[in-house]
Amino acid sequence: MPFVRIDLIEGRGDAEVAAIGEAVQRALVETMNVPERDRFQVITEHPRGRLVYNAAYLGVERTDGIVLVQVTLSAGRTTDQKLAFYARAAALLEQGANVRPGDVTISIVESTREDWSFGNGAAQYLVLPKEQWK
Amino acid sequence: MPFVRIDLIEGRGDAEVAAIGEAVQRALVETMNVPERDRFQVITEHPRGRLVYNAAYLGVERTDGIVLVQVTLSAGRTTDQKLAFYARAAALLEQGANVRPGDVTISIVESTREDWSFGNGAAQYLVLPKEQWK
Amino acid sequence: MPFVRIDLIEGRGDAEVAAIGEAVQRALVETMNVPERDRFQVITEHPRGRLVYNAAYLGVERTDGIVLVQVTLSAGRTTDQKLAFYARAAALLEQGANVRPGDVTISIVESTREDWSFGNGAAQYLVLPKEQWK
Repeated sequence: MPFVRIDLIEGRGDAEVAAIGEAVQRALVETMNVPERDRFQVITEHPRGRLVYNAAYLGVERTDGIVLVQVTLSAGRTTDQKLAFYARAAALLEQGANVRPGDVTISIVESTREDWSFGNGAAQYLVLPKEQWK
Repeated sequence: MPFVRIDLIEGRGDAEVAAIGEAVQRALVETMNVPERDRFQVITEHPRGRLVYNAAYLGVERTDGIVLVQVTLSAGRTTDQKLAFYARAAALLEQGANVRPGDVTISIVESTREDWSFGNGAAQYLVLPKEQWK
Repeated sequence: MPFVRIDLIEGRGDAEVAAIGEAVQRALVETMNVPERDRFQVITEHPRGRLVYNAAYLGVERTDGIVLVQVTLSAGRTTDQKLAFYARAAALLEQGANVRPGDVTISIVESTREDWSFGNGAAQYLVLPKEQWK
C-alpha cells in the first residue's frame, strides 16, 4: 500500500542506498501495519544543488546526508502509528545505514483503498479479502 | 488535470518509453473523463536497485519490466471510473507497449480544482467555464 | 511544511535552475505563509521526451521551457492564498529566472500536520508551539 520515494544527494555507494531503502521499509512494517512484501520504492540521487534543504529549520541540524522520504499510502493509520514510524525510521536509518537522525525528513500523503492497482488491471484492495493482503 | 509520474527500470528504448506514456494517457482519456490535450507526464528510468519492488505481493508476478504509474488529479472520479482506468491501462500497455499486465502498478492521489494552475499564474479550473476545459 | 518537486527539460545552467528554485520558494513565503527557512526542494532535469506536455491545453501556449511545480503541504491555505501563489510564482519566475508565464504549471497536494517529520524522529508540528515554527 505504501509507495515510497526517497531522495538523496549523490555520493553514497549502492550498499548504503540499499540499506536506506531497507530501513524505511522495516520501519513501515514494524509500525504502520504494512505487510513485509508490500514494498515499492523509488530511490533517486541528485547532484548537490538539485536537492535543496534548509540546514536549520525547526532547530534541527541537517547536512548533505539528508534523506527525504515521501510515503503515499491509504488513510487509516492513527497519529500514534505515524509518530512511531517517524521515530523508528530515524532509529533504523541510523543503525542500518549510518544516517544522522537530524537528516531524516519524512512526509506522508494519504489516499484511499480504491486508489491502488497492484497489477493485472485490478483494484486488489477492493476485491481481495483482507487476509490475502500479503 | 492529471499530472502523471511514471517510473521504470532503465533499459527500454525511446519508442517503448513513449508508447508507455501514450498508453497511460489514452486510458485516462477513455475512462476518467480526461481531455485529450490534458497531458502532463514525467517518465523516469532508474538503475536496477533504485526502483525496488516486491515480485509477488498480492499474488501478482512482477518483473524488471515493472511500470509504476502515479496519477495526481482532482477528486470527483467514481470508483467505477477508477476500476475501468486500471483495467484499460493494463490492456493498452500490453497492446501498445508490450508491458506484462502483472507489471502495471498504479496509484492515484486526489486534490481539488483550486489546486491547479496551468500557466500564466491563473487557476484555470476556477475561472474558465467547464466547456472550455480542453 | 511544503515539499516541492520541480521538473524541467534539461538544458538550463546551474544558475538558472537555482533561480527557479528560489523564485518558487519566495512565492510560497510571500503568499502561503511559509517560513523563510522551510525550504525543501527536489529539482530534476529530464531529457526531452521524458517530460511530456501539451503545448496548448486550456489555451495556454507552452514551450520546452516548461516548469512543472508540485507542492505538497499541510491543508489550511485559503483559495485566495493559492490564487496569490500561482500569480506570484509566475511573476517571480519570469523576473528572476526568465521563465515564460505560460510555462509555469503548478499543482498542490495537501496533507495534514501530523504527516511531517523534520528530523530526529519527531513530528515537530504536533509537539513544537507554533511560534517556534521557523
